[in-house]
Amino acid sequence: MKFFEKKLHGKTIYDGKILKLEVDEVELPDGTTSKRECVRHSGGAAVLCVVDGKVLLVKQYRYLYGKEIYEIPAGKLERGEDPLIAAARELKEETGMSADLIPYIKLYPTPGYTDEIIHVYLAKNCRGGGNQSLDDGEFLSVCSKPLNEVLSLIESGEICDGKTVAAIYKFVSESN
Amino acid sequence: MKFFEKKLHGKTIYDGKILKLEVDEVELPDGTTSKRECVRHSGGAAVLCVVDGKVLLVKQYRYLYGKEIYEIPAGKLERGEDPLIAAARELKEETGMSADLIPYIKLYPTPGYTDEIIHVYLAKNCRGGGNQSLDDGEFLSVCSKPLNEVLSLIESGEICDGKTVAAIYKFVSESN
Repeated sequence: MKFFEKKLHGKTIYDGKILKLEVDEVELPDGTTSKRECVRHSGGAAVLCVVDGKVLLVKQYRYLYGKEIYEIPAGKLERGEDPLIAAARELKEETGMSADLIPYIKLYPTPGYTDEIIHVYLAKNCRGGGNQSLDDGEFLSVCSKPLNEVLSLIESGEICDGKTVAAIYKFVSESN
Repeated sequence: MKFFEKKLHGKTIYDGKILKLEVDEVELPDGTTSKRECVRHSGGAAVLCVVDGKVLLVKQYRYLYGKEIYEIPAGKLERGEDPLIAAARELKEETGMSADLIPYIKLYPTPGYTDEIIHVYLAKNCRGGGNQSLDDGEFLSVCSKPLNEVLSLIESGEICDGKTVAAIYKFVSESN
């Protein structure tokens, strides 16, 4: 059986800097109707960079969780931007590094209410580093942690960021 | 250096079935102010169930991506609900299965704009199966796929769901 939901009509509730919220009325497979709360997002790009067994991480205050969290370098795509360009830009801005970037994982972070796609790249031949050039209002610190320590921080629940966890476990699963 | 963003005031833009959208004005570490677009969500629970080398998956139409996608069984927490109870309920409703559930991964799916936490459990001693008891307006099919096939579907980009990808790679990384 093939499932499908047909849009009947929609309404834009909010159109902001990071996201747009639309609420659509849809027709379900059984002919009944329902509402879909849709966060529209331009997408994200992230970079897993492991050099000499150490993972490049940024530590950033995340208002939604009320604390600083560790993540691999990442950022939002400009509308229509090539994710590879965005990944290289964010890596450079956040850490000062450049690298050759290889497509690694494509993620739907939480498919019940957002259309965001996060494109994760694996960095090869990392070079440079040191000078950040952050956006206005962006504050973060950069660090490198041994892979084993990063795994421990995931196990203990201190590192929870979805793209980071997925990328690290993929890397470990392929290193064994 | 410790980063912090102080809430100055906030406004509820939308309060729906799945999510609430708030826009807060915050004070940044340098004393300037900025807006934070905040999707408030009650959280999610998911179950990785691997029996005889096969992964239990549900295939569900996801309106935001306009197609059916594979995910491990999962659902939304009722407000304040214990994630373990929610995981057991969703597993039962979506697949008819029961199991002993062990905490496996805690995920922040996309920390830039949602406060959702997804609690992933690993199923042990799976039993039952067959009869779904889905919510009104919920349509999905259940299948089991060999772990190697699931990995191929992740590699090819056909399986992108974040919690599913993270759980599968963790499982593989620990099986090697």
